[in-house]
Amino acid sequence: MRPEALGVIGLGAIGGSVAWGASVAGVRRVIGYSPLPAETVAAAKAGAVTEVAQSVRQVMKQSEMVVIAAPPAATLTLLATIAPDLLSRGVLCTDVSSVKSPVVTEAARLRLGELFAGSHPLAGTHQSGFDAARSDRFVGAVVYVTPTPTGAQGALEVADFWQGVLKATPVTIDAEVHDRMLAWTSHLPQVTASALAAALARTGPPGVTYGSGARDTTRLAASSVEMWRDILLLNRDAVLVTLDGLEDQIGVLRQALVARDEAAVAAWLEAGAAWRRGLGE
Amino acid sequence: MRPEALGVIGLGAIGGSVAWGASVAGVRRVIGYSPLPAETVAAAKAGAVTEVAQSVRQVMKQSEMVVIAAPPAATLTLLATIAPDLLSRGVLCTDVSSVKSPVVTEAARLRLGELFAGSHPLAGTHQSGFDAARSDRFVGAVVYVTPTPTGAQGALEVADFWQGVLKATPVTIDAEVHDRMLAWTSHLPQVTASALAAALARTGPPGVTYGSGARDTTRLAASSVEMWRDILLLNRDAVLVTLDGLEDQIGVLRQALVARDEAAVAAWLEAGAAWRRGLGE
Repeated sequence: MRPEALGVIGLGAIGGSVAWGASVAGVRRVIGYSPLPAETVAAAKAGAVTEVAQSVRQVMKQSEMVVIAAPPAATLTLLATIAPDLLSRGVLCTDVSSVKSPVVTEAARLRLGELFAGSHPLAGTHQSGFDAARSDRFVGAVVYVTPTPTGAQGALEVADFWQGVLKATPVTIDAEVHDRMLAWTSHLPQVTASALAAALARTGPPGVTYGSGARDTTRLAASSVEMWRDILLLNRDAVLVTLDGLEDQIGVLRQALVARDEAAVAAWLEAGAAWRRGLGE
Repeated sequence: MRPEALGVIGLGAIGGSVAWGASVAGVRRVIGYSPLPAETVAAAKAGAVTEVAQSVRQVMKQSEMVVIAAPPAATLTLLATIAPDLLSRGVLCTDVSSVKSPVVTEAARLRLGELFAGSHPLAGTHQSGFDAARSDRFVGAVVYVTPTPTGAQGALEVADFWQGVLKATPVTIDAEVHDRMLAWTSHLPQVTASALAAALARTGPPGVTYGSGARDTTRLAASSVEMWRDILLLNRDAVLVTLDGLEDQIGVLRQALVARDEAAVAAWLEAGAAWRRGLGE
């Protein structure tokens, strides 16, 4: 779908990029709303939006399609708030949160059916706020699209929006499969980086120099706390399974070190090295 | 010290950079040896060495100062092999391995005293081999220099080599203090990246897309297996202490998730986020 009037609720790194990309792609009206006045001003100055709304209600009055770009828990609240407007005016809606099953379940409960499909663009950054928005953030990026149980057509329209307007590569996937997969590919890396950073903060030596390796490995730890709190709690069961997987591996190394088992330490390192080399830079 | 003839044993990412930097800095003779013929050829072609030696023995006959640039366990073996030559000709020697206490202890046992000081340049890379060598790798880089118990003067000369010839910033430090510090700042990040990579390799879903976050967090896992096997085993006790620190933090998150304690999850994430933001990009 290529809307004439697109509403974007939330103008941070992702919402700001959706609005900006749509403006650049020639969507006639891009109506932005952010609860943070500074973000609204920055988005307007950059030309990322064509109009600034003063409230979610005002966005809903004018938009043909709405993108909710808020942290996951706020996304659930907003969806319930705007559901009556979506239903009464037949407005298509999507969101951009990293956890999809709770959002799709809530959309189904609100009987949005064809009017909602979840989205998760793989174009995140550990930076947050409109400063991290880019008009071309989604060009070529994979965007997972998760239909409601009765929303195959809505998912097609949402996928068409990502592809046609923002030049992304939409991939339709079941919300629960998505969440279990992302627990490994995204949530576990985040937790690992945060755990290392927390360990260094709490127990590491003070006033020391960190090289590029430690910086790379902990970079994700600087991500939005609010967003990740929501993601980890909403995808709790799948995340706990991945924590088992990580702790198992630390245990394998610990045992090999305690036994001074050279071959076992090397085999353990090799498993990770082979996998990482296969991933490319 | 600015030698007229510098011997470099090992021409990988670090040894190749030492040789190349010295050649560029105008050291008259840079005599390189590598057990890998391809690396010797690449170093000679690049002009990183002025002469190629066919054996360690040949390096020892001609050099005024020798840099051992091998994995940690091989460094210990090489040091014992060349100690008689170092002593008989009064040649200054250093190494570049990431674990310093075993090397300094071995040098003391071999009665090298003033003729040896350990070095650890903080200019590593997850890449290995001469392809990753750079003539300016050490410019501005911190290089830890660790004296033997009777080697204060030798450490000054080694520090002077790093600073005067390779434009690095030498920092003299006790070897044991160095190893405990590096267990946190370097060895734990390596182990964390390898554990995450091993978990994803073993238990993660096949054929999925990884974003920049997972790539950053696992980048170190591609590092040299042989080198890291040696480092982890030679610094075993300190590394095991850091594993406790990491596992404690994973445990804190696990408990907060199991209890669905929003505030605790947020506080845990915030500890890592604050630390990482303080580190800068």
